[in-house]
Amino acid sequence: MSTFGKLFRVTTYGESHCASVGAIVDWMPSSTGLELTAQDIQVQLSRRRPGQSDLTTPRNEKDLHGVTLGTPIGLLVKNEDQRPHDYTETDLYPRPSHADYTYLEKYGVKASSGGGRSSARETIGRVAAGAIAEKYLKTVYGIEIVAFVSSVGKIHLPALLAPPSLAKLLATISREEVDKHPTRCPHQTTAEKMTQRIIRAKDASDSIGGTVTCVIRNVPSGLGEPVFDKFEAELGHAMLSIPATKAFEIGSGFRGTEVPGSKHNDAFVRRPDGSLGTKTNWSGGVQGGITNGEDIYFRIGFKSPATISQQQETAQYDGTSGTLAARGRHDPCVVPRAVPIVEAMAAIVVLDQLLQQDARKAAASRLPPIKTLPPTMVMPKKL
Amino acid sequence: MSTFGKLFRVTTYGESHCASVGAIVDWMPSSTGLELTAQDIQVQLSRRRPGQSDLTTPRNEKDLHGVTLGTPIGLLVKNEDQRPHDYTETDLYPRPSHADYTYLEKYGVKASSGGGRSSARETIGRVAAGAIAEKYLKTVYGIEIVAFVSSVGKIHLPALLAPPSLAKLLATISREEVDKHPTRCPHQTTAEKMTQRIIRAKDASDSIGGTVTCVIRNVPSGLGEPVFDKFEAELGHAMLSIPATKAFEIGSGFRGTEVPGSKHNDAFVRRPDGSLGTKTNWSGGVQGGITNGEDIYFRIGFKSPATISQQQETAQYDGTSGTLAARGRHDPCVVPRAVPIVEAMAAIVVLDQLLQQDARKAAASRLPPIKTLPPTMVMPKKL
Amino acid sequence: MSTFGKLFRVTTYGESHCASVGAIVDWMPSSTGLELTAQDIQVQLSRRRPGQSDLTTPRNEKDLHGVTLGTPIGLLVKNEDQRPHDYTETDLYPRPSHADYTYLEKYGVKASSGGGRSSARETIGRVAAGAIAEKYLKTVYGIEIVAFVSSVGKIHLPALLAPPSLAKLLATISREEVDKHPTRCPHQTTAEKMTQRIIRAKDASDSIGGTVTCVIRNVPSGLGEPVFDKFEAELGHAMLSIPATKAFEIGSGFRGTEVPGSKHNDAFVRRPDGSLGTKTNWSGGVQGGITNGEDIYFRIGFKSPATISQQQETAQYDGTSGTLAARGRHDPCVVPRAVPIVEAMAAIVVLDQLLQQDARKAAASRLPPIKTLPPTMVMPKKL
Amino acid sequence: MSTFGKLFRVTTYGESHCASVGAIVDWMPSSTGLELTAQDIQVQLSRRRPGQSDLTTPRNEKDLHGVTLGTPIGLLVKNEDQRPHDYTETDLYPRPSHADYTYLEKYGVKASSGGGRSSARETIGRVAAGAIAEKYLKTVYGIEIVAFVSSVGKIHLPALLAPPSLAKLLATISREEVDKHPTRCPHQTTAEKMTQRIIRAKDASDSIGGTVTCVIRNVPSGLGEPVFDKFEAELGHAMLSIPATKAFEIGSGFRGTEVPGSKHNDAFVRRPDGSLGTKTNWSGGVQGGITNGEDIYFRIGFKSPATISQQQETAQYDGTSGTLAARGRHDPCVVPRAVPIVEAMAAIVVLDQLLQQDARKAAASRLPPIKTLPPTMVMPKKL
Repeated sequence: MSTFGKLFRVTTYGESHCASVGAIVDWMPSSTGLELTAQDIQVQLSRRRPGQSDLTTPRNEKDLHGVTLGTPIGLLVKNEDQRPHDYTETDLYPRPSHADYTYLEKYGVKASSGGGRSSARETIGRVAAGAIAEKYLKTVYGIEIVAFVSSVGKIHLPALLAPPSLAKLLATISREEVDKHPTRCPHQTTAEKMTQRIIRAKDASDSIGGTVTCVIRNVPSGLGEPVFDKFEAELGHAMLSIPATKAFEIGSGFRGTEVPGSKHNDAFVRRPDGSLGTKTNWSGGVQGGITNGEDIYFRIGFKSPATISQQQETAQYDGTSGTLAARGRHDPCVVPRAVPIVEAMAAIVVLDQLLQQDARKAAASRLPPIKTLPPTMVMPKKL
Repeated sequence: MSTFGKLFRVTTYGESHCASVGAIVDWMPSSTGLELTAQDIQVQLSRRRPGQSDLTTPRNEKDLHGVTLGTPIGLLVKNEDQRPHDYTETDLYPRPSHADYTYLEKYGVKASSGGGRSSARETIGRVAAGAIAEKYLKTVYGIEIVAFVSSVGKIHLPALLAPPSLAKLLATISREEVDKHPTRCPHQTTAEKMTQRIIRAKDASDSIGGTVTCVIRNVPSGLGEPVFDKFEAELGHAMLSIPATKAFEIGSGFRGTEVPGSKHNDAFVRRPDGSLGTKTNWSGGVQGGITNGEDIYFRIGFKSPATISQQQETAQYDGTSGTLAARGRHDPCVVPRAVPIVEAMAAIVVLDQLLQQDARKAAASRLPPIKTLPPTMVMPKKL
Repeated sequence: MSTFGKLFRVTTYGESHCASVGAIVDWMPSSTGLELTAQDIQVQLSRRRPGQSDLTTPRNEKDLHGVTLGTPIGLLVKNEDQRPHDYTETDLYPRPSHADYTYLEKYGVKASSGGGRSSARETIGRVAAGAIAEKYLKTVYGIEIVAFVSSVGKIHLPALLAPPSLAKLLATISREEVDKHPTRCPHQTTAEKMTQRIIRAKDASDSIGGTVTCVIRNVPSGLGEPVFDKFEAELGHAMLSIPATKAFEIGSGFRGTEVPGSKHNDAFVRRPDGSLGTKTNWSGGVQGGITNGEDIYFRIGFKSPATISQQQETAQYDGTSGTLAARGRHDPCVVPRAVPIVEAMAAIVVLDQLLQQDARKAAASRLPPIKTLPPTMVMPKKL
Repeated sequence: MSTFGKLFRVTTYGESHCASVGAIVDWMPSSTGLELTAQDIQVQLSRRRPGQSDLTTPRNEKDLHGVTLGTPIGLLVKNEDQRPHDYTETDLYPRPSHADYTYLEKYGVKASSGGGRSSARETIGRVAAGAIAEKYLKTVYGIEIVAFVSSVGKIHLPALLAPPSLAKLLATISREEVDKHPTRCPHQTTAEKMTQRIIRAKDASDSIGGTVTCVIRNVPSGLGEPVFDKFEAELGHAMLSIPATKAFEIGSGFRGTEVPGSKHNDAFVRRPDGSLGTKTNWSGGVQGGITNGEDIYFRIGFKSPATISQQQETAQYDGTSGTLAARGRHDPCVVPRAVPIVEAMAAIVVLDQLLQQDARKAAASRLPPIKTLPPTMVMPKKL
């Protein structure tokens, strides 16, 4: 389906090389309204790809005074770079590790524009929708979503390897800091190494993958559905829907499977405000599929881009083996530009889950207390 | 929501300590019917937990001659072990890294039975539903789904580390082989080490996590939706909805992010039957969110069980810090029993996606060919 | 699909002649819980068909102290009357205006038990789910849902023809009053005529249809989604999913199409509590798809039962024309028993829409007021 | 939600007085593609409102050669008539039987542009989406969808009252015939009377309602889901989501409730091609929620437009009673323009149900026959 979300819902259309891409955003909360300007959206679009994804039609900017109304918002970004198809060779070859072959298998039609819907252009609609969701989350809950590049090839951000320094990084990192270096890695020495690694890939007409880590701060506890729609399951779904992703982990992730329960368990402590927090946060802010109020953090693996500027031995559509010629210059590493896309999908998941929990809580809060409730079921008082 | 799937849909109810758990399975395909017996389901229930999850009501076994009708199937497993709640201490303490606290935050009610819906008992309904889906997949496509334990703590199955031996393992592994050792690791030496590791955890009143790897063979190409519901996104969603999971990766996963594109790209080759296959399979059977006919394989990380038999320093619900006493014996490692749950969720995802692609293909196949179609869009003939 | 609802969701299974029918009810609101007993549900099951639909498994009655927890509720009613199939003739004939033929066309399997899922037995799950929803609606909002028989054949409840007497009836009618006469028509003289009409049908081995009218009182304003999921569209969907229904109208319905706008418009008046109400209620409590706080009322047409005890000239499955013999006694008029089913579906729709609006309102209420809001958009103060 | 459909899905945005309205159409079937031109869509847009709803952005007309690809289609119609809001009086008064009041109750914001999303402008997106669906239905199945005005006020098309003449009308009516008279009533004498009735309403600064009847020919049997998503329930949902609708009936509808079963039952007959048809068609093409291959016909009631050009005594938002002044000229009767909207929603429902049944049938057709199937379950051979 081209729609994501249960209550806060984003529907996108558009692919590479077509006239425009866009989205419809449904169920944006509104009361006396939330001021939303094109600029709120443009900031993230520009972080995705500067100068190439200008929002031309924020639906109702003028007549509605830049105020959201709770009704769906239409978004459109025109494609300036809508060149006619001129690569005759790719008419013969499905590009290795691209979606050319699988799309043909799915739709029975060769989309001449390459990967079609799996194109990175489609993500423009998501980034715009995420920026809208984020405006609400920030205004109401002070929720902060910050993603950054945590590895390029084998070069990893050192902080990730040590829980205490990781916790500190996650607690304080800001987008401004992330953007200080073009690789969007917030550790300058590592960022430089990453740049070298990317240049090396470029010089070799090759490409290299990496990981993005993201933290979401100030999310209320209680979000997520206990069984199939656990918070981390929805989040994983959202992240694995971003092109080129191959892996997702939350909290301690794969590494945590090696840590014994006695060390991995997050003991509770009383926070200054009287609520419960946890001493450690191996869980990554979710327990049993539901947020516990601690920082939510997760990591996503992006494979090396399939488009490379060197010859490849491979088969044509008809089975003939041959050599797919080297092509023009391409981006040898996409993780820096994936940062705002990760943030966007995170914002969409959080707002969708917030709306669901709002429904539960509001409906439950109207029930009168039960006198006969057994003591074991009573919610304990805070100290 | 308590429902998973778009067309093939599974809805479950039930939690720990309640009278029964069950599921409703909707949209099971049928024509002149598919013979389905209670035994088909019981096999996997018993692999999940021998002797404790007997299917008592396969809805229509007698009157409908064991034949599925395309209408929903109700499933019920009674809880024999429905003991009254007797742990007064857990009335005071939210257990660390359990769902006690987050459920209270979500529902405003303390479920005396502990983790409530996030209990492992809920997975009975999934395993039963998965067995039903699998019967169709095996009968019609010869699809084989085999999961196994690939690590316990720091003890990893060696094959995972070397692509060629991994490919061979994935191509041949069977459930019989997996079940030869109680740890469900198909490499006897490693399995023994895992057993020792689990015993060590047990002796220390501690617990240990691990990973499960799963392969799905013979899945047709073309499954998966290009944008939000990519095959791997649905698969990741399904796996991350299993209790205690923290990580998911498909194909080369996190490790693949370190491999340059020139090596990571899966070049095409002509298969003996004339169709296209790939030389390598770093992609794990999906490209652009859509299956390509190669083996689908993925790995899931399960954290160390939160229930341990040793004292823990932690806070009570009201914030008072204290010591949660050691409790009775518990399973120090759950990954061996997670194997059939992983297989079940995989079967549900594949059947749901198959039905969606069946709709697309059947509808498209009725369209007459277009004469004016430009050559670049025509599906190439096989050699 | 076998699921109804977006947030409050009911999934049913089961059909005629199978071992049991049941439902899973998801998203029942709970806080410190809502006391729910088997008796709450049994009352409506017994109104549906006395003595034949005893709830045997209210999931968690004992261990959970009869308190809802917000988690899904499993419901099961065993079929006492699970006779083997013994009508050889219906193996040859699709019964006219039954679902025998269309089910065969849909599923490719002849369900030996006749109408299969379209059987009235399936409605047991709905009635149980509706009773659960109603418990919340009544407890929290004092919402009252009362359906009654408004016509049998050509015998119509006179009040329906005159707006003022209709309004009065709708404002005061109770279930007790409805149940005073077995036809469930709240006007004794008309009820007697209806009885005579039903007896006449029975004596002629024939059947007769009728209409059910339903009122929902005390529904808050603001429920319903503006475009595709208008309140009346969801309500119509729910009602037209009840077996044997052919028509639905809300408020003035078909008759209202003949009334000029100047008379049909519901002018606003100030209610004693300062809120706005309407002088007339031709709209039936909804405007633009959204409830306005006035009584919601609607009417549903049920066709004459297709099962009749007389011979019918018709064709066999293979096309041979012949005579389908008279069969045993059947219910010549089903509308009295449809009353609790209509109430159940109404309750499900209202609770589902309430939860959706709760999400919207709760999320919107947290937004800070906007200072620059143009005056035309400001919500006016009440006098 | 702003999305309709399960597989073939339409999402709309936009309301009155905003910059544009549009839709995203998902899951349009495609193989070697279906030729789709802007003209295919424009025809119905122009029937909806000539000259005011020109499609400006059929997404990918040029680069994709007017061929659908199976991927989502974005549609946009700019609003030429985007006047600033200048009605100060409606800032004080909620217009009677409009959505002004209920929208304020729902969203907490006064949409200055009046009815907001319930505006007729929103239906542009639906009409465009329906035209796309219809192209497939016509190309592949020869499905014909024809709606016409069957009453204006108390003036009814005579054919509706007599089953035989109705059957004949439904079997032959075409859009060309419907469009011969501006009222879109296919009976010239009646059409003239309707015109007079509309003129009378106009002269009285009043408005008048009416009904639209629609037939869908050549729909395959087997469409519709047996329980909650019966074909007629989905159809009713779709129709009751059109602005100003208050009533829906299929087949014999309300009138059929007065006809005894012995007469109302549709006996089967062998069709010339060997398949089964029915002698009569009181059912309106559906039995048990599933299509039987006969003509599907239904009728929808539209209330008299709420906007009238005369003074109305009513209350202001703040409760003050007063007189809402007469406003400018408005359309005194909307049913003629509702005709293409009804056809569009019908097409959307049919294609969505076709795709679902395609999934069921394709999946079931791959199952091998069961040898042990009891004779009563075997599908009978055609003669």
